[in-house]
Amino acid sequence: MRPYVFVNLAMSADGKISTRERRQVKISGSEDFERVDLIKADADGIMVGIGTVLADNPSLTVKSARRKGERKAAGREENPARIVVDSMARTPVDADILVKGSGKRIVAVSAAAPAGRVDALKERAEVVVAGEQTVDLAALMEALAGIGIRRLMVEGGGTLIWGLFQAGLVDELRTYVGSVVIGGSGAPTPADGEGFLAESEFPRLTLTGVERIDDGVLLTWQVKKEEGDRSLRG
Amino acid sequence: MRPYVFVNLAMSADGKISTRERRQVKISGSEDFERVDLIKADADGIMVGIGTVLADNPSLTVKSARRKGERKAAGREENPARIVVDSMARTPVDADILVKGSGKRIVAVSAAAPAGRVDALKERAEVVVAGEQTVDLAALMEALAGIGIRRLMVEGGGTLIWGLFQAGLVDELRTYVGSVVIGGSGAPTPADGEGFLAESEFPRLTLTGVERIDDGVLLTWQVKKEEGDRSLRG
Repeated sequence: MRPYVFVNLAMSADGKISTRERRQVKISGSEDFERVDLIKADADGIMVGIGTVLADNPSLTVKSARRKGERKAAGREENPARIVVDSMARTPVDADILVKGSGKRIVAVSAAAPAGRVDALKERAEVVVAGEQTVDLAALMEALAGIGIRRLMVEGGGTLIWGLFQAGLVDELRTYVGSVVIGGSGAPTPADGEGFLAESEFPRLTLTGVERIDDGVLLTWQVKKEEGDRSLRG
Repeated sequence: MRPYVFVNLAMSADGKISTRERRQVKISGSEDFERVDLIKADADGIMVGIGTVLADNPSLTVKSARRKGERKAAGREENPARIVVDSMARTPVDADILVKGSGKRIVAVSAAAPAGRVDALKERAEVVVAGEQTVDLAALMEALAGIGIRRLMVEGGGTLIWGLFQAGLVDELRTYVGSVVIGGSGAPTPADGEGFLAESEFPRLTLTGVERIDDGVLLTWQVKKEEGDRSLRG
């Protein structure tokens, strides 16, 4: 069993999530900001890769005081469980994701992560070991389902999202396409990593939503299921 | 003066125009194929970069016999003028773009292109020299306007499109977003090259069309004008 996994991201009209220097840029506007905060408040967990933590230092907290209050009133933590996929335990112990806001933190590392760094992280987060050299994402998902995470939001970056698609672990992809061009063969995109080479390998999607927001458009895609997939809402 | 320049391309849901091996892949379907053939038949010229010629060997001819007939009946060539941006004159003399179908061919080279290859290309195409080491796209556009090209379609690839955006020479961007994920940090995207670094440099767009086609969506964007721009329909 694994959580229902939805990827949420904003990209430029030419398919970039930031500049080649990984500088965070404004791709969407205030209406989209509200949308993202709402779906975050609905999630049980929110996941990012270590590259995003090091580049952007996001806190991934729910921003709206009202939504935090609603979560507490429902007996939940104010923020969804925040999960870093971090094979070598490089998350700084003072990263915003570990120190800002209340709620559970999970750092997923591989067996190859240096023990000293793992021990330091254990002061601030639950550490899950999954995989030998890199994090085994499928095993991590099983572990997350085991601790009650049913709806998991993935914020990026492109390397983590690629890994999730490669492992067949994505249920839904929401891309906000914004009204700028960023360019750059070296700029991060929604799915980086090695990439698929044969058309037969490509994940196939179904377009389930098209909505204009701010001065761009939100595209919602469902990933077509492979046989034997055990997503909680699959 | 320069032509009205519109970029037309298909990308995956994660912003790729092909795999990292530059293998041509099917991103859109038959309805989009018809749309592209129609706008091609409406154009005075169609432009690609040398990378696309070498990777895909496209002919860029109008496919519909009826549309070719309509062009002839209107006193035009069956195909729009086909233009390769090719700084070092690397276009093979037997490339489909030079040998298939009737109509004018233009190969734009830089002054650094080897004379032998330029001479060979002159057998098959008009050669325009613009720029010292690489093609000066603004000067090329002036030359194209001078020979009557008012509507210019750009098919790619990502390096040429980046160069056009960088030079402020794009009026319109049409991206068909298809229902597959390709992935790959090395896979070509709609705008490659160096990329912009500062938000103040980003070309700004206005979303003017959202249309579901096949199992994806066509997004039409107008590029916000810079002062002093002299596009023919600017």
